[in-house]
Order: sequence, then C-alpha cells, then structure tokens
Amino acid sequence: MSAPLFDRVAIIGIGLIGSSLARAIKAEGLARTVTCADANPEHAERAKALGIVDAAGTDPAEAAAGADLVMLCVPLGAYGDVAAAIGPALKPGVIVSDVGSVKQAVIRDMAPHLPEGVHLVPGHPVAGTEKSGPEAGFAGLFPGRWCILTPPPGTDEAVTRKVADLWRACGMTIERMDPAHHDRVLAITSHLPHLIAYTIVGTATDLEDHLRQEVIKYSASGFRDFTRIAGSDPTMWRDVFLNNREAVLDCLQRFNEDLTALQRSIRRGEGDALFDLFTRTREIRQGVLEARQA
Amino acid sequence: MSAPLFDRVAIIGIGLIGSSLARAIKAEGLARTVTCADANPEHAERAKALGIVDAAGTDPAEAAAGADLVMLCVPLGAYGDVAAAIGPALKPGVIVSDVGSVKQAVIRDMAPHLPEGVHLVPGHPVAGTEKSGPEAGFAGLFPGRWCILTPPPGTDEAVTRKVADLWRACGMTIERMDPAHHDRVLAITSHLPHLIAYTIVGTATDLEDHLRQEVIKYSASGFRDFTRIAGSDPTMWRDVFLNNREAVLDCLQRFNEDLTALQRSIRRGEGDALFDLFTRTREIRQGVLEARQA
Ligand SMILES: NC(=O)c1ccc[n+]([C@@H]2O[C@H](COP(=O)([O-])OP(=O)(O)OC[C@H]3O[C@@H](n4cnc5c(N)ncnc54)[C@H](OP(=O)(O)O)[C@@H]3O)[C@@H](O)[C@H]2O)c1
Ligand SMILES: NC(=O)c1ccc[n+]([C@@H]2O[C@H](COP(=O)([O-])OP(=O)(O)OC[C@H]3O[C@@H](n4cnc5c(N)ncnc54)[C@H](OP(=O)(O)O)[C@@H]3O)[C@@H](O)[C@H]2O)c1
Repeated sequence: MSAPLFDRVAIIGIGLIGSSLARAIKAEGLARTVTCADANPEHAERAKALGIVDAAGTDPAEAAAGADLVMLCVPLGAYGDVAAAIGPALKPGVIVSDVGSVKQAVIRDMAPHLPEGVHLVPGHPVAGTEKSGPEAGFAGLFPGRWCILTPPPGTDEAVTRKVADLWRACGMTIERMDPAHHDRVLAITSHLPHLIAYTIVGTATDLEDHLRQEVIKYSASGFRDFTRIAGSDPTMWRDVFLNNREAVLDCLQRFNEDLTALQRSIRRGEGDALFDLFTRTREIRQGVLEARQA
Repeated sequence: MSAPLFDRVAIIGIGLIGSSLARAIKAEGLARTVTCADANPEHAERAKALGIVDAAGTDPAEAAAGADLVMLCVPLGAYGDVAAAIGPALKPGVIVSDVGSVKQAVIRDMAPHLPEGVHLVPGHPVAGTEKSGPEAGFAGLFPGRWCILTPPPGTDEAVTRKVADLWRACGMTIERMDPAHHDRVLAITSHLPHLIAYTIVGTATDLEDHLRQEVIKYSASGFRDFTRIAGSDPTMWRDVFLNNREAVLDCLQRFNEDLTALQRSIRRGEGDALFDLFTRTREIRQGVLEARQA
C-alpha cells in the first residue's frame, strides 16, 4: 500500500456527503487520520460509532487543528460561521476545500476568514441523493461521477492537484471551472430541476385533501419522480437558492418563457408545435444516455 | 386451468401497452385467441414473430371481426378513425374498451361510431414507461398498479366486471371513476409533470451548444430525471395534451401561480418561506413511499 495522500483530514459536517467521503477515505486508505465535527452531536457520535472517523465532536476548530486538509461538508448557509471558527486553528500550509453545490458564494463567505498561507480550493462532487445525515452516506456515491474544482486564480498548482487526487481516488473524474460558470451550469442542470419539482409537488400539497390522496395514489404515472427530488433536504436547498439567486432566477425566466409558449400551443391546439418540441427533447435524452449519466 | 375469460380478444395498436397486454393475456391464458392490428406493418409483423398474438395485420376491422373484446391501444388522436373502421365489423354484444390516458375524449370520439348492442367500457391502466413499440412491452408492467375504469352511466354491470377481471388477472387493482374526474386527477399526477419535464428539457435544448453539452455532462444532479420523462413518445403526448386541454391548462395555471410565489421568495431572500415549502413537499414524498407507488 502506498503512503496516504494526507496525514490528517478534517471533515466539517458529517452528513450525506461528508460521511460518504469519510467512508471512501477509509476504504481507500487516503489519510492516516480522519477527524470530524458536526453541529449535531448525534451525527458526530454516529460517525464515530460507524467507525468511519477516528475522532468526532461538535467543535469545528478542534477537528480542524493540525489537519492538512479541512473539507467543509455543511449546508452553504453555515460556511461563514464555520470558516470564522476554524480560521484561528488552521495550521500554515493547510488546504481548505469543500463540497458545496454553489461556488461563488463559498469563496465570498470563506475567504475573508482564512489566514495567510492557507490554500483555498473549492470543489463540488456532482453526486448526491435525496437523503441526508451520516447513515445515508456510502462510498459508492462517487465512482463514475464528475467532480468540479474551482480554484481561484493564482492557486498553487500542486495544491489543486492534491485535491484532484483525493476525488480521483474516490472514483470521480475531475473538471476545472470558473466559479461563475459552475454556478450557471448547475443552475440549469440541478437547481432549476429541484425548484420545479418543489413547485409541482407544492401545488399538489395545496389541493383539497381528497384530491391530494388521489394524486399520491396514482403518482406512478409521472408525479412520483418529482416527489423524490422534492423530498430533498430543506436546509441544503434553501441555502442553494439563497446563494445562487441570480443564476437561478435567470434560467427560471427562460423556463417561464418556454412554458408560456407551450401553454399557448396547447390552448390553440397546435399539435405540430407540440410534436416538434417533444421530438427535440427526446434527442437530449439520447445524449444523456450516451454520456452514461442515466 | 379454468376457462379463458374471453374467446377472442382483438388489440388495436400493438405498441408498449398493447403488446404488454397481449403478453399478459398469453401468460395468464385469458383468451383463446388474440388478434391484433397496427397501422405500422412492422409492428404487426413483430408482434406475430414474438408469438404474443395469433394473427396480426394492418386492418382494424379484420382484427375486430368476431372478437368478444376489442381493446384500443392506439394514440388518442387515432380513436375516431379506428372506431369508424371497426364499427361495421363488430359482432353484437361485443365489449369495446381501451387504455387511453384521457377518458372524456375517448367517449366523445368513439361513441358515435359504435352500433347499438356494443358495450363501451373505457379504461386506463395507470402503468407505463417512456419507451414505445411492441419490443418495449412486458407483462410485468401491470402488477401492483391501478387500473381506472370509467363506464358511462347505464353500462351493464356484468360487462364492466368482465373488463375488471381482465386487468385484475394482469395483476392490477381496479378503481372506478367518473371520466371528468379521471381527467382532472391525471392532469395533475401525470400530464402536468410531463409538460413541465418537456419544458425544462426544451429550455436546455435552446442553450448554446457548449452549455448544452455541459448540461448533459452534469445531468446526474437532477436534470436526468426530467430527460427520462421528456423522452416519452411525442405522438402519444401530443394527443394527451390536445385531448385534455382544459384540465391541463387549469392545473398549469395553479402551478404558474406557485412558481411565481417561489420566484419572489428567492428574489427577496425569504429563507423561511423556502424552508416551509420544502418541508411540506417532503411529507408528500413520505405519502408516496407509504402508498408503495415508488
Ligand atoms: N445532497 C446532495 O445531493 C449534494 C450533492 C453535492 C453537494 N452537496 C453539498 O454538500 C453539502 C452538505 O450536504 P449534505 O447533503 O451532506 O447535507 P446533510 O446530510 O444534511 O449533512 C450536513 C451536515 O452538517 C451539519 N451541520 C449543519 N450546520 C452545521 C454547522 N454550522 N457546523 C457543523 N455542522 C453543521 C448537519 O447537521 P443537521 O442535519 O443537524 O443540520 C449535517 O450533519 C452542502 O453544501 C451541499 O450543497 C450536496
Ligand atoms: N406509454 C404509457 O406510459 C401509457 C400508459 C398508459 C396508457 N397509455 C395509452 O396507451 C395508448 C398507446 O400508447 P403506447 O405507449 O402503447 O404507444 P405506442 O407504443 O406508440 O403504441 C401505439 C401503437 O399504435 C400504432 N398506431 C398509431 N396509429 C394507429 C392507427 N390509426 N391504427 C392502428 N394503429 C395505430 C402505433 O404505430 P406507430 O408507432 O408506427 O405510430 C404503435 O404501434 C395511448 O392512448 C396512451 O395514451 C400509455
């Protein structure tokens, strides 16, 4: 077995993503020691009991002290507080990275709290489920998926490579991107679909009780796919929308225009326009299948 | 083995649903003979070659002649023509039924062409996939799913029971409903989700080429679930929207209002409103899981 990539990794937030990473690090022997901190003491204890970390507590500074890599796996709204808490405890030369679903906000919220000599390499493993918490994690979440890194200009190349090596060892393929571009692509590919799913399932919750029961009963005809997405963690998704507002509102506007056009086609009985659209969308499905993302 | 339910069943349209039914009828011995007609000669030949029907051709009147049950499994837009074609060939006392995803339009389009003494029992097995054609069918499509029957007032009870027995023997659970109510429930649970999925995938097809490729690449983060739905058959879905216009436009309007409210919450940064909605939608997911429709 080759030497571990890191001596000591600290994972802040040991939920779905954090615990999946801890499991992969243990399985692949990627660090000598893994510590974690979680605001939820039950999650910290659970992680320790599962044997996926060597030490666990509720104090992020304690977990981060002495680490070579500190990985933030908390909801985006917690980044500022966590960065402020760990800042003073960080050892010089440490790499601070994260898994957050939005990247511009992460840099905005963390950078001011990180002392000189700390390397910030934000990242986003594009892999997830609608579950949350340390029990929901699994090392198999990552293989075959993309991990996007958004190092700020001037970041030490060797440092970025080390973070890339970590995710590659977890089975991911690495891409680099400008953070603004990341936020725009993910707004379309992830945030808008979640927003729409939340809305349609929300529309159903507002129905009279009897009709709502019937919607659940016959959900296999399309609705249930949306309920899975709309069952995702409320805190995580609140924070995503609050922290990627502009890009989300921008693609929501395009979506709205397209929906209005489709609505008009239905109202006017324009079968050809419907058929054309439904044929074009089929091609995208083909692309997704060929890219093996389905 | 008990006597088959029907002596001769004719399936008009041997695609995904028609061929699944043919397979189930053969597997369970529910008819002595199964004939079929499909406007697509390749589909008819394929069904014969697969051994799931005893006779196959392109003429619906020929297939329907002498049948005790004629089951329409064609897109909704073809109902009028098919009914006009089979009308003169139907034997007295025959049951005419169907599997169409909309029910008021079916009665409107078929009833005028059916001679005296023919029993019309419209139905909708609420089970499907995004695939189409005779190769895509499988008898396992039906078990554990609901089949909704919408017999017009005055329908002979014994006749409705016979159609119910057929679907029950395929593994389905039977519900009866008023056709207008059916169309309203399915508009929310199936037609609106498809409309939204088509729109969002359509929005992505309009992106600049480079961005579109990235959306496909990172589709695992939410988008791909929509591409599956938006990969459904264009003809079938054009006909669904054209034939359930009012109910679809009505729930689209509710959806639009809810989307506008959510958009406003994001713009104003109202985290609590987002969190509340995302918590309510989670409960519906729980309902779907408990109803074992996921
Ligand atoms: N889920 C996905 O599909 C996915 C995919 C890619 C990236 N991400 C990103 O990954 C991050 C974590 O998401 P997740 O799905 O792993 O969520 P999760 O399962 O809820 O895990 C987050 C953990 O952090 C804890 N926490 C909350 N605030 C904290 C704080 N201030 N300090 C320390 N711990 C805190 C949470 O405790 P409580 O539960 O008690 O609040 C929970 O244990 C988010 O930034 C998200 O954008 C998620
Ligand atoms: N797919 C679902 O999820 C689902 C679920 C429940 C109910 N349904 C309903 O089931 C019906 C059939 O849908 P499906 O999914 O089975 O579609 P499908 O796989 O496309 O099968 C329809 C078959 O009918 C043929 N056809 C078209 N026009 C015809 C005509 N005038 N006369 C005879 N045959 C004709 C088609 O040939 P071509 O392909 O060459 O046009 C095709 O072989 C629709 O009314 C739909 O609303 C569908």
